[in-house]
Amino acid sequence: MDYSKMCPKYEHASELLGKRWTGLIIRVLLGGPRRFKEIKEQIPEMSDKMLTDRIKELESCGILIRNVYPETPVRIEYDLTDKGRDLEPVIEQIQSWGEKWM
Amino acid sequence: MDYSKMCPKYEHASELLGKRWTGLIIRVLLGGPRRFKEIKEQIPEMSDKMLTDRIKELESCGILIRNVYPETPVRIEYDLTDKGRDLEPVIEQIQSWGEKWM
Repeated sequence: MDYSKMCPKYEHASELLGKRWTGLIIRVLLGGPRRFKEIKEQIPEMSDKMLTDRIKELESCGILIRNVYPETPVRIEYDLTDKGRDLEPVIEQIQSWGEKWM
Repeated sequence: MDYSKMCPKYEHASELLGKRWTGLIIRVLLGGPRRFKEIKEQIPEMSDKMLTDRIKELESCGILIRNVYPETPVRIEYDLTDKGRDLEPVIEQIQSWGEKWM
């Protein structure tokens, strides 16, 4: 890789993934579709407002989708798109670095 | 990997790497030791204060070191430690995701 100059695509990806909670939310959803409160259960320090904001952001950039099932009561689940699922190698590398060095 | 519960080591790693500019600074240093102004050249939007803060933070957690060469004028360079260089696979995965999806 050419490290001698910055790459705008890397810059953009890094900014997106670098937002607080984003790396945790994506990790949770790699386990499969989850409801709002199921995501919260794995990240209890994150506020509802924060999770709502991050979900909107990740939805607007095509990393996750919101599925609404017309049941009673209505069931809403969040799932990764292909773009989101493609982040698995990133998450895995962070995990293995964390296991070695944290 | 077990995505059914959050891993504190992942959480810690993700928080550290997720800070604004950190991913960019590490990418620059993967190219080899750099002086303050050489880092800035690749990340011109980042303020001097921000770079100073991030360098201190990354130094205190053992990701980079500051080398002082007693020349005239004195030369100061920043370099990754083994812990820092071990982040290369993370950076590479972010890069390749960025190239595909950004």
